[in-house]
Amino acid sequence: MRQGSDDDVRRFFQLLRPPELADLLEHVAEEDRVRVLRLMGVPLASDVLREVEEPEKEEILEDLTPREIAEIAAASKSDDAADLIAALPPGKAEDTLGKLGREDRREIENLLRYPEESAGGIMQTEVVKVGSDATVEAAVEAVRGADQERMGEIHEVYVVDPAGRLVGAVSPADLLQAEPGTPVKDIAEADPVSVPVTLDQEKIAETVVEHDLAAVPVVDERGVLVGQVLHDDVADVIEEEATEDIARFVGADPDEVHGESISRAVRSRAGWLLPAFAGGLLVTFVIGSAEALLREVPWLAAFLPVILGMAGNVGTQTSALTVRGLALGRVRVGPAIRRQLVTGVLLGIIFGLLLFAFAALRGGGHPALAGLTVGVAIFISMTVAAAMGVSVPLLVHRFGFDPAVAASPFVQTANDLTGAAIAILVTRWLLLG
Amino acid sequence: MRQGSDDDVRRFFQLLRPPELADLLEHVAEEDRVRVLRLMGVPLASDVLREVEEPEKEEILEDLTPREIAEIAAASKSDDAADLIAALPPGKAEDTLGKLGREDRREIENLLRYPEESAGGIMQTEVVKVGSDATVEAAVEAVRGADQERMGEIHEVYVVDPAGRLVGAVSPADLLQAEPGTPVKDIAEADPVSVPVTLDQEKIAETVVEHDLAAVPVVDERGVLVGQVLHDDVADVIEEEATEDIARFVGADPDEVHGESISRAVRSRAGWLLPAFAGGLLVTFVIGSAEALLREVPWLAAFLPVILGMAGNVGTQTSALTVRGLALGRVRVGPAIRRQLVTGVLLGIIFGLLLFAFAALRGGGHPALAGLTVGVAIFISMTVAAAMGVSVPLLVHRFGFDPAVAASPFVQTANDLTGAAIAILVTRWLLLG
Repeated sequence: MRQGSDDDVRRFFQLLRPPELADLLEHVAEEDRVRVLRLMGVPLASDVLREVEEPEKEEILEDLTPREIAEIAAASKSDDAADLIAALPPGKAEDTLGKLGREDRREIENLLRYPEESAGGIMQTEVVKVGSDATVEAAVEAVRGADQERMGEIHEVYVVDPAGRLVGAVSPADLLQAEPGTPVKDIAEADPVSVPVTLDQEKIAETVVEHDLAAVPVVDERGVLVGQVLHDDVADVIEEEATEDIARFVGADPDEVHGESISRAVRSRAGWLLPAFAGGLLVTFVIGSAEALLREVPWLAAFLPVILGMAGNVGTQTSALTVRGLALGRVRVGPAIRRQLVTGVLLGIIFGLLLFAFAALRGGGHPALAGLTVGVAIFISMTVAAAMGVSVPLLVHRFGFDPAVAASPFVQTANDLTGAAIAILVTRWLLLG
Repeated sequence: MRQGSDDDVRRFFQLLRPPELADLLEHVAEEDRVRVLRLMGVPLASDVLREVEEPEKEEILEDLTPREIAEIAAASKSDDAADLIAALPPGKAEDTLGKLGREDRREIENLLRYPEESAGGIMQTEVVKVGSDATVEAAVEAVRGADQERMGEIHEVYVVDPAGRLVGAVSPADLLQAEPGTPVKDIAEADPVSVPVTLDQEKIAETVVEHDLAAVPVVDERGVLVGQVLHDDVADVIEEEATEDIARFVGADPDEVHGESISRAVRSRAGWLLPAFAGGLLVTFVIGSAEALLREVPWLAAFLPVILGMAGNVGTQTSALTVRGLALGRVRVGPAIRRQLVTGVLLGIIFGLLLFAFAALRGGGHPALAGLTVGVAIFISMTVAAAMGVSVPLLVHRFGFDPAVAASPFVQTANDLTGAAIAILVTRWLLLG
């Protein structure tokens, strides 16, 4: 690409679609990216830039002038334009907004007021709408007048009352099937599913998935239509939320997947590791208090890690499944607890018997008694871990917190503590009477 | 609902949408579900039943007769009808197919031949298509002739050549914007993005998300249009795949989230726990071999769980982020390894210093030396755990396996082993010179 003339490069662009060009741009050497983007021209650059991922997007925006960014923003859908401005440092954002037309500027500033993960933060303001007294013909005219190049594909024409409140929705296919003279409200779906402008994006995704929508209208507190969220933005949200759930579950910042700074990554992970560490320190006291016992039965020290580790594994399995079930709305409290308890007991029996057999065959003093001790200890520890793995996320959820964030470190700390205590108590009880 | 007359119940139905009725049906007592579904009538029952989740769906299908299921299938989209038949036991499936019209039966049997998670397994065969010589007017006629009630919303009209091969696509909104006499191929997108009928659903979702499609056409090996996958099915796939990733990462069957049988859950979890357990047994040998050392420095036993636990936590964090990054296609090998190593070293330093301080202040013989020992041990263990957490999933992925399945137990087992060995070696080295 470096050797080709500008015309060669432009001809090459025509062979590819915007997402492919975005991939290509991410792999081009940093110093060539802006040159390539400039060769695309504004409309194509707008389509390509919205598909470029972090951190490459930020690097490109650094190298573009405010005037160039303003031109690209003016050719983009309102939500993509707002995302561009939001990714700029404050001074450059101000400069770029200053280069935009008054209308575009007002619209973008308006969108930037909403939280990034709310309906207002992800919606586009471009909609096709008609009054409630319009005919099918008028609705067709409204579609004809819309700039699909800029606003994206049209999935719904919204029907609004004189105050701008949403009262209906009709698809272009419905319009094609209807007679031109029919009043549009006769064929429109009345009171279509909509979302409030303040709704969190996770709830929007739930609504869209539940009702199989290609586009969901966004309304303000008075019911006035202010924008729409399209299926492709919803698909992005579902992926993003799944990444968040996974990252939070292991105590990492979701942005780590997208390459955020190492110092932020370390801070967020260290914060999450701290409760587990504190639990580990308490474990040192629990085991330390049994120093006399460990002198008497030194093999117990060798078995503690496998007992604590297996309890930790079952606890992690159980809490991960419970957290995901809660996210999908597929958990009923009673049956979930019963299920996980029975599963934990069965797994405890399996690995209790295996550990008993292993310890009994391993030799050393009183091998059968040693086997019984560690077998019973791992059985109780795994059962307790399963019980905590299901009940802690449910409790955290019941009190209105995100179970993915809170459940895991608590479960882990509690498991380490109870596992160590159980192992020591069982040993005392079985060996020392 | 039990007390109301049938007419009351029917009136109540009209107030709700199918997804809400499906929720309601899931919460109705088992013995009343079929009565309620029968009251809905066939078209509504078809819309509602596709939204009902497992295991309630299976329970309802058990209570319906083959004739009733056939009536519902005949009123459903082809993919939903095939899903209904696939959920039946073989004998009942055969009976139900026998009650269907020849055309419907052939279509469903055809769909059932494809793997459940392939394009053929999730596509609907209902499409609106026109020949490549058609005018816009003819395309509009094709839309008018389509049964949206049954086939779902129309997002694309496909253009096919005389052999049935896909050559273009045009949206209803594009048709509204075009002049009636225009040849449809002049306004259609040429060579639209399509997926082969054998493609895995995860790849379909990637394609649809990358290209922001509302519907993706499915073609056979000759390029002949055989069906389409709509955005709502893609959203389901994205959620399903995220659930699979999470469940596999902790070694559980993804169906556990949807309430599969406990015996299957126990089998799949036990299988995954086995390598971790085997690693734990090896750890007993490693620690057992240091019995003399443990007699000399009994506090080491108390610190082993926190050292192994913290290494395990960092390993889990690192491998979860790497697995998710690989699933999203956001991982570049070199930078990812560098990042995670630096993060692991920094976390190792933080918790190494903390553990040093704690152990040094805790007292006992040689507290400063004890602190130095466990501090160095946790630092090395956490660093090694981070290195394995990033490199094992990358290796597993490189060799073509699913990193979510394979990475986690290996990382965990390896961490336990190296953590124990490191702690013992460091203690020997620092205390016994």
